[in-house]
Amino acid sequence: MAQKTTLKEFESVYPKLEETLLDHARSYKLPQAELEWYKKNLNVNPLGGKCNRGMSVPDSVSLLLGRPLSEDEYFQAATLGWMTELLQAFFLVSDDIMDSSVTRRGQPCWYLQEGVGMVAINDAFLLESAIYTLLKKYFRSHPAYIDMVELFHEVTYQTELGQLCDLLTAPEDKVNLDNFSMEKYRFIVIYKTAYYSFYLPVALALHMLNIATPEHLKQAEAILIPLGEYFQVQDDYLDNFGLPEHIGKIGTDIKDNKCSWLVNQALEIATPEQRKILEDNYGQKDDAKEAVIKKLYDDMNLKQRFEEFEEKSAADIRAMIDKIDESSGLKKSVFEAFLAKIYKRSK
Amino acid sequence: MAQKTTLKEFESVYPKLEETLLDHARSYKLPQAELEWYKKNLNVNPLGGKCNRGMSVPDSVSLLLGRPLSEDEYFQAATLGWMTELLQAFFLVSDDIMDSSVTRRGQPCWYLQEGVGMVAINDAFLLESAIYTLLKKYFRSHPAYIDMVELFHEVTYQTELGQLCDLLTAPEDKVNLDNFSMEKYRFIVIYKTAYYSFYLPVALALHMLNIATPEHLKQAEAILIPLGEYFQVQDDYLDNFGLPEHIGKIGTDIKDNKCSWLVNQALEIATPEQRKILEDNYGQKDDAKEAVIKKLYDDMNLKQRFEEFEEKSAADIRAMIDKIDESSGLKKSVFEAFLAKIYKRSK
Repeated sequence: MAQKTTLKEFESVYPKLEETLLDHARSYKLPQAELEWYKKNLNVNPLGGKCNRGMSVPDSVSLLLGRPLSEDEYFQAATLGWMTELLQAFFLVSDDIMDSSVTRRGQPCWYLQEGVGMVAINDAFLLESAIYTLLKKYFRSHPAYIDMVELFHEVTYQTELGQLCDLLTAPEDKVNLDNFSMEKYRFIVIYKTAYYSFYLPVALALHMLNIATPEHLKQAEAILIPLGEYFQVQDDYLDNFGLPEHIGKIGTDIKDNKCSWLVNQALEIATPEQRKILEDNYGQKDDAKEAVIKKLYDDMNLKQRFEEFEEKSAADIRAMIDKIDESSGLKKSVFEAFLAKIYKRSK
Repeated sequence: MAQKTTLKEFESVYPKLEETLLDHARSYKLPQAELEWYKKNLNVNPLGGKCNRGMSVPDSVSLLLGRPLSEDEYFQAATLGWMTELLQAFFLVSDDIMDSSVTRRGQPCWYLQEGVGMVAINDAFLLESAIYTLLKKYFRSHPAYIDMVELFHEVTYQTELGQLCDLLTAPEDKVNLDNFSMEKYRFIVIYKTAYYSFYLPVALALHMLNIATPEHLKQAEAILIPLGEYFQVQDDYLDNFGLPEHIGKIGTDIKDNKCSWLVNQALEIATPEQRKILEDNYGQKDDAKEAVIKKLYDDMNLKQRFEEFEEKSAADIRAMIDKIDESSGLKKSVFEAFLAKIYKRSK
C-alpha cells in the first residue's frame, strides 16, 4: 500500500536542502551579509504554502511503487518536490512584482518587505538557480538526470509563455474585453498553471523511478493538463461563488480585470445588452460595479454552467484514467489521487 | 592560421537562431500578439551591442584549431556565442530595472519602452530560457551537452551572487562607505562580470572542441578571472579618467554611489581628513560634490596607482599565459587575444 506524506514530513526535508544551497554559496565565499540575505530569501519564499505540488511527488512515487517509501526514496522524492516548490517560489516572487500584488500567503509580498524592493528580481533568479544546484548535487548520477534538467527547462519556459499571455491579455490598468476569449483563457491556464502544477510533479516521479517512457509521459500529460485546466476553472468559479470562510479570502477577480473562466463564459453567451453591462462594469475598483457583474453572473446561470463543466471534466478525466494499462508500471491511482483532491472541492 | 570574426558575420547567424526560438513558441500555439511581443524582445534586447563576449567564442575556437572555421564549425561556435549574448541580455534587462537605469545602448531601457513596464521581468526570463532551447536544439547529441548546460547554470548562479552583492553593497539611495572594501569589490567584479564575460566564452569553446578537461578549465579560469578583474578595474578607471570622446559617455560612477575600484582604492589609503571628504561628497547627484571627489582622486594619485595596477596585472597574466603547455591542445594565443584587446585600452 502507498502512504500519503504529511506537510510536516515534507517540510522536515527542507533544512538539509537549504544547508546544501547555503554551502554552495559559501563555497564561493559569498560575504556574510549577502549570505544572510540569501538565507532569508530561502526561508521566506519557498516556505509557508500548502506544498500541494511538492508533496505530490513523494505521493506519486509511493503510488507508483504501491508501497511506503524507504527513507532514502522519500528524501529523493521530497527533494524533487522541493524543486517544484522552488520553481513556484521563483514565479510567485516575480509575478507579484509584475501584478503589483500586495500580499502573499498572509504576508506582504517579498518585494514589499522592508528593504527588499527590486532586489527581489535577483532573489527570484536565485530561487530558480537553486533547482539546478539541487538537481546536480542529488541527481548527477541518476540515469534520468539530463531528462529532469530538460523537463525543468521546458516547464519553466511553458510557464513563462503562459505568464506572457496573461500579462498582455489582462493588464490591470487597461480593460478591454475584446482581448478575452476562451481560446486565450485555455492557453493561459494550461501554460501558466497546469504544466508546472500537475504535469511536472508526476513527470518527476516517473523519472525518479526510471519509468518515464515517452508513452507514460504522453499519457500523464493527456490526463494532467485537462485536470489542471479543471482545477483552475474551479479556482475562478470559487473566487466568485465560493464561501469566503472556505476559500480563506474575498475574491477580487472582477475588480482586478482577471481573464477568468466566468467572464469568458459570460462573453460567450452574452446578448448585446449583457455585453454592454460587462463592458461598463468589469475590471473596475468599484463595489457597485462589481455587484452588477455578480448579479449578471447569477442571471446568466454561470453556477449551473460551471457544474455542468465540472461533471463533464471529471467524467472525461475518469474515462482517460480507466483506459490506463497498468502492466507497464503506470498506475491509475496516481491520477485518481489528484482527481479526488479536486472534485467538488469548496476551497 | 586562425581567423577573427566580424560583427557582421556574427550577426548573420542570429536570424536562424531567432527563427528556431519563434518556431519553438509556435509549436505551443502561442497566440499572435504574444508571438510578436516575443519577437520584439528577441530583436531589441540581445542585439545592438558590440558582441565582444559572443564573438570571442568563434575567435577562441579558431585559435584553438589554428585555422579558419568551416561553415558548420562557425555556425556552432557562433550559436554558443549568441547564448552568451542571450545570457547577458537576460542580465541587462533585469539589472536595468533593479538599478533604475534610464538608457541602454543609446535607447531607453526595455522596461521603459512604450507599454513594456514590469512585463520586462518575464521577458528577461524568456531570454534565459532561449539559451536552453538553443542548446537542446543544436547540441543535444554533442558529447559535452550536459557539461555546457551545467556551465550555463553555474555561471548564471555566479553572476546572480555578484549582482546580489553589488545591490546590497551599493544601493543607489543610501550612501554608506563602510559597506565598501576591496574584498567586496573583488567579489562583485569576479562574480558579476568576469565569469560570464571571460571564462564562459572560452569554456564553451573548449567544450565545443571536446578539450574541456578539468585541467584546461582550471587553467582558463586561473587566467581569465584575473583578466576579467583587470578589465573591470579599467572600466572603473576610464569612467573617471577616460576621455568622454573615447568612452562614448560621461562617467557617472561618483554620483551613482558605485562601488568602483577608484573609491575603494581611495578608502584604503585615505587619511581621516580625506575619508571625511569622501563621506561628505561621494554618491550624491551634485556637480560640485562630484568635482570635490575628482580633485581628491587626483590629489591621491589614483591615476598612477591604476597604471601600476595595470602593469602588474598584465605582467602576472602574461606570466601565466607563458606557462601554458600547448601540447595538450590549449593555446596561448586564446588568452593573448583577450589581453591584447584590453591592455592599455582607452575605450
